[in-house]
Amino acid sequence: MTIGIKGAPNVHSLKQCVPVTFNYDVHFTQGLFELDNPLFAQVLTCEENSPKKVLAVIDAGLLQHQPRLLEKLAAYAEFYRDALIFVQQPAIVPGGEAAKNNPQLVTQLHQTIDCAGLCRHSYILAIGGGAVLDMAGYAAAIAHRGIRLIRVPTTVLAQNDSGVGVKNGINAFGKKNFLGTFAPPYAVLNDLDFLATLDDRDWRSGIAEAVKVALIKDADFFNFITKHAAKIAKRDMQAMQELIYRCAQLHLGHIATSGDPFEKGSSRPLDFGHWAAHKLEQLTNYNLRHGEAVAIGIALDSTYSYLIGLLTKSDWQQILDTLKALGFSLYVPELATHLHQLEHPNCLFRGLREFQEHLGGELTLMLLEKIGKGVEVHHVDLLVYENAIALLKQHHDNGE
Amino acid sequence: MTIGIKGAPNVHSLKQCVPVTFNYDVHFTQGLFELDNPLFAQVLTCEENSPKKVLAVIDAGLLQHQPRLLEKLAAYAEFYRDALIFVQQPAIVPGGEAAKNNPQLVTQLHQTIDCAGLCRHSYILAIGGGAVLDMAGYAAAIAHRGIRLIRVPTTVLAQNDSGVGVKNGINAFGKKNFLGTFAPPYAVLNDLDFLATLDDRDWRSGIAEAVKVALIKDADFFNFITKHAAKIAKRDMQAMQELIYRCAQLHLGHIATSGDPFEKGSSRPLDFGHWAAHKLEQLTNYNLRHGEAVAIGIALDSTYSYLIGLLTKSDWQQILDTLKALGFSLYVPELATHLHQLEHPNCLFRGLREFQEHLGGELTLMLLEKIGKGVEVHHVDLLVYENAIALLKQHHDNGE
Repeated sequence: MTIGIKGAPNVHSLKQCVPVTFNYDVHFTQGLFELDNPLFAQVLTCEENSPKKVLAVIDAGLLQHQPRLLEKLAAYAEFYRDALIFVQQPAIVPGGEAAKNNPQLVTQLHQTIDCAGLCRHSYILAIGGGAVLDMAGYAAAIAHRGIRLIRVPTTVLAQNDSGVGVKNGINAFGKKNFLGTFAPPYAVLNDLDFLATLDDRDWRSGIAEAVKVALIKDADFFNFITKHAAKIAKRDMQAMQELIYRCAQLHLGHIATSGDPFEKGSSRPLDFGHWAAHKLEQLTNYNLRHGEAVAIGIALDSTYSYLIGLLTKSDWQQILDTLKALGFSLYVPELATHLHQLEHPNCLFRGLREFQEHLGGELTLMLLEKIGKGVEVHHVDLLVYENAIALLKQHHDNGE
Repeated sequence: MTIGIKGAPNVHSLKQCVPVTFNYDVHFTQGLFELDNPLFAQVLTCEENSPKKVLAVIDAGLLQHQPRLLEKLAAYAEFYRDALIFVQQPAIVPGGEAAKNNPQLVTQLHQTIDCAGLCRHSYILAIGGGAVLDMAGYAAAIAHRGIRLIRVPTTVLAQNDSGVGVKNGINAFGKKNFLGTFAPPYAVLNDLDFLATLDDRDWRSGIAEAVKVALIKDADFFNFITKHAAKIAKRDMQAMQELIYRCAQLHLGHIATSGDPFEKGSSRPLDFGHWAAHKLEQLTNYNLRHGEAVAIGIALDSTYSYLIGLLTKSDWQQILDTLKALGFSLYVPELATHLHQLEHPNCLFRGLREFQEHLGGELTLMLLEKIGKGVEVHHVDLLVYENAIALLKQHHDNGE
């Protein structure tokens, strides 16, 4: 078949189209590793009724709060021995961003995968916060071109956002997620009980992603958050359960129907507020939690949206008030350091370029035209951003 | 929504379905980097008319045969400067399996990608044999979760098989492709002219994959190969052009329509003859070319198919005669070393387990029931394989 390559008469071409469908279930449960909860065992044996090889990778931070977890896992495996075998002792890895900053952890997991003879039909069971899930997911995705990954997200952030998505990754060259792949999990098991032992910062942090997705997609959900903000901040478990479920649902729906789940284009609506957040995490040496940084990023981009006349004042105030009622601080000095030195590595505005570079193509930022409706722009005015930062500082200083 | 997890009353679940479609064109041309051939420039600018950032990765082995290639690339980029910019000097990497055995090469490419600010809409242009394409493709796939890859396969093997497929990878822990991903390329540019300077072994080697796919899928194509075997062996370019086109077409068709392009199941029909081939490459310290090993693997599994009464004697003889007419040797001593020591790392039969482990799940081998039709089996008889090896040795010793 000859196709229309102009001026290249001797070109023959074959057009290839490869359709791939990824299916996975996100389960919401409690007491995941209690013996009377067969969910995990049933997920493993849903295709075939023989014991599956499983390597557990566990967030060290989680173990501090759940000291009996290893025992429980061993008892679970013993009780459900027709469904699973832990091939090795669980790999305990540092929690938080440290998991993504040490490439040796990936190498060590690969050594274990090799020694234990795990194959593409074996399972990595990753239990922990988003960073551990990202690292373990990356290790799983590139071993044998993909070992099955079961995610057990144990933070709010991971249960309602990163843990239900299709990405993994580690940091390299000082850049977030420089290495990674798009690789949907085999299944996600969300256990509400893990949230009870989170410290307050981690409890709060994950709520920022719910605020984000509500703001760009679902005014009704945002009003739910506004209404229950004080309750959620005081760790009301029922309100949190609904928040997580609705947030996960919105994220999953976006991934399934956006038409670009593997982000081949330049648009990434779910990254509202994230260009500044990513940079602030780095500028604060990751002393800010991801969600804390996202809350500031949301406040900043909402304020920018308001200042350019896109968003009404009342919507803007509701957003800032809700974030504050949830307990977020909306200003850090790193927002303003080196703001006029655009080439300085610690200038916030370099985050715009890094954001564009990671995703590729044209700069594409999500702003807000009203609560529940985002709009994409390709150019921004840095002077207006400066004013937005000044406004957030003023709010902060006045304790508004 | 509550789903039917038996005995787990408090489970709510969200079912996620992520459809992803990968499109890419495989172009067949000549004089790819001649100034009067706009194909490459047009492929880069088909979406958007601005100069694209490109990092070239070139097989050092190729440069020995094509000493003017670097000059030609530079001239092409100058002439088509509205379409492309080479962001750095091309990365020259060792050809052959060495490219896949040195993880530092991947790291170095990532450093270059970082320094040059390549993004997901930039391009890696990988020029070389299958191993270089595999390594560069892996580096591209995991940087920023996937930089666009344009493959320029320069060997018969890469043009008709690996270069048109959806896999990449490097070796680790002494295992082929231990690390890798499924990642379709952005485009494939096959230039027939590169084949003119291949040495005889590389010319011949790639033909084995055409024999393989013909045997399991297309009797008419196999008869074409039988009929033109002597001509092809004598480097008739027109016969080779047809062989490559038909072989690539069969591979692409299989990937697009098999229903399992990312090999989530245990079946891999295109790996007919490959379990022994992979092991033989390792046992000969990669002194055997992949295609040479595949030819032996095909001979072995065809002989096994004949010995168990699946394949007729005349079909079996046609297969062996064709392989020999193409110039392949069908026996190496490594087939028989340590054959009775099943736990010895150099026992050929360990290749069965390693094959199963890489793919996962149940052992699934392709055998032949007639020329043009493969059939999958899940059990093999090692004694019959011993007889098959003995028969190949006898054939070889008698110069049949």
